[in-house]
Amino acid sequence: MQKRVTVAVDAMGGDNAPVEIVKGAVEAVNEHDDLKVILVGDEGTVLKELAAYTFNKDQVEVVHASEVITNNEHPVAAVRSKKDSSIVVAQKLVREGKADGFVSAGSTGAVLVGGQFVVGRIKGVERAPLAPLIPTTKGFSLVIDCGANVDARPSHLVQFAKMGSIYMENIMGKKNPTVAIVNVGVEEEKGNQLVKETMPLLKACDDINFIGSIEAREIPNGWADVIVCEAFTGNVIIKLYEGVAAALLKKVKEGMMSSLRSKLGALMVKPALKKTLKEFDISRYGGAPMLGLTGLVVKSHGNSDATAIKNSIAQCIAFSKQDIPGKIKAHIGTKQSTPKA
Amino acid sequence: MQKRVTVAVDAMGGDNAPVEIVKGAVEAVNEHDDLKVILVGDEGTVLKELAAYTFNKDQVEVVHASEVITNNEHPVAAVRSKKDSSIVVAQKLVREGKADGFVSAGSTGAVLVGGQFVVGRIKGVERAPLAPLIPTTKGFSLVIDCGANVDARPSHLVQFAKMGSIYMENIMGKKNPTVAIVNVGVEEEKGNQLVKETMPLLKACDDINFIGSIEAREIPNGWADVIVCEAFTGNVIIKLYEGVAAALLKKVKEGMMSSLRSKLGALMVKPALKKTLKEFDISRYGGAPMLGLTGLVVKSHGNSDATAIKNSIAQCIAFSKQDIPGKIKAHIGTKQSTPKA
Repeated sequence: MQKRVTVAVDAMGGDNAPVEIVKGAVEAVNEHDDLKVILVGDEGTVLKELAAYTFNKDQVEVVHASEVITNNEHPVAAVRSKKDSSIVVAQKLVREGKADGFVSAGSTGAVLVGGQFVVGRIKGVERAPLAPLIPTTKGFSLVIDCGANVDARPSHLVQFAKMGSIYMENIMGKKNPTVAIVNVGVEEEKGNQLVKETMPLLKACDDINFIGSIEAREIPNGWADVIVCEAFTGNVIIKLYEGVAAALLKKVKEGMMSSLRSKLGALMVKPALKKTLKEFDISRYGGAPMLGLTGLVVKSHGNSDATAIKNSIAQCIAFSKQDIPGKIKAHIGTKQSTPKA
Repeated sequence: MQKRVTVAVDAMGGDNAPVEIVKGAVEAVNEHDDLKVILVGDEGTVLKELAAYTFNKDQVEVVHASEVITNNEHPVAAVRSKKDSSIVVAQKLVREGKADGFVSAGSTGAVLVGGQFVVGRIKGVERAPLAPLIPTTKGFSLVIDCGANVDARPSHLVQFAKMGSIYMENIMGKKNPTVAIVNVGVEEEKGNQLVKETMPLLKACDDINFIGSIEAREIPNGWADVIVCEAFTGNVIIKLYEGVAAALLKKVKEGMMSSLRSKLGALMVKPALKKTLKEFDISRYGGAPMLGLTGLVVKSHGNSDATAIKNSIAQCIAFSKQDIPGKIKAHIGTKQSTPKA
């Protein structure tokens, strides 16, 4: 018999909760026989949503949580004070081994704080990074770390490189993924203190495919599969990616709407344009894994629909089946990964 | 009689040197009676180029330099060893007071190194930042610092904020420009060590219009006129701006060329699109000032044409007439700007 994977889902988090979250969870169990979903949130609300669907009752459980953490709350304070929130209750299920993974489209801050302090890190992992996928002209890359832990040390970045490689290879199917560190130039002597100290450590790792520095200009061209940086830089990358794309598309639309001729042209261009631009939509890869924890935590985009939630749940299944925590433990334990920085 | 401004121009630097550089210099003197340009480079080559144009001979001088620093050379080593390069010879003219400003489309690294060590900083200025203008949906913003000095201290960022404000107000004509610091969130407690330490210092400055943190997502929306960051972050911002825009436009083109219908539409959309996209072209603001030096150093984009060079020279004229070095000296000397960090 196959091992059953259990995923706790925050039924109350995100712009489209609970409707799309519950719908996505049902779609996931209907696609995966070996999956059990625990929907965490207000029991009455969740049961009412569930009533609309047909599914194997064995595969869905509802765990009541009376509170919700909103995006406007201070994450640390909220996780501490709202013990009965859907995020904290669900993450406790992971810590206690009752769930293998956790999916939320709610407060990123609370998910990250809860990941560190409620779920807990794998032994030997110094920091648990958030690693969203970004679109590139070649496909996608993983940017690790975009989380809340700024001011990282070289040893953290080395662990990020290893965890990111394991994720890309085993979950995203990229064989022997290339790893690069974000830098201000590709020359040997370039970089800030952190990059200069990290560089020789990454070079010494024999369990990753390290290719050196990557300039930010080349990130959208997909020059590396795993892009290592500390979280301040990662945040700038992810948010600027979104911001520049949105501003530029606004300009494209303005141009298209500026004359009768261009408006007619726009009508003809639109269907083809929609398709190529969708390939470059950052929210398409909404489910950002938080790695290095005893179970997988997936932070789904705030505006996730049922499909996005279903895909995030599928990530948790793969994560558990591939025993990513076991693989991380094995690689983090190697000599090169715990240098005295 | 008006004060005459003298600008030294690197005739040998950039993809289009010497043709476009010499042409731009001639166009500048033909537009500005009070301008003198010193073209620095191989005398024979420059004189041959000049022979094609009509201009007031009093306004153009050629100073011979037998060497050229290329983009492939290590900047520090090149500036040290090539004493007779166009960059070093021209920057010496600024140091000796024979020129008020310097324009180059050549090696960015060599221009920055020469700025620090050949031209020299204004007394009291701790670091000379490179501050390119970037397009936004509202117009443009100044990103300071995007230079070579990574690992800045809080007191450096405070000086960047002041110098950037002076430049935007006096050269770019933005009245009381808003200043923001790049951060991972807008909440008070967010930020890395550097941002947290710099924040109260910026708040205490009464000579800038500080509005707090800016997330990278909002940079393309023009939320602040002066965007303060240390050079590693600034480099990521500038280069990712270019990279994402290029990748996205590639996708737009792909979409437009994907079917007969979309190709016909593209023909109709093209003229209008060209216009709006030009407004968002980062190379349009090719002349990035390096501030805090005794004379203005303008790093023009490597692919600068005559118009770009002419515009960079015009920046030097305004810089000198507005006595920016005097204004910087006055503000850098204030109490808030030299905190013990």
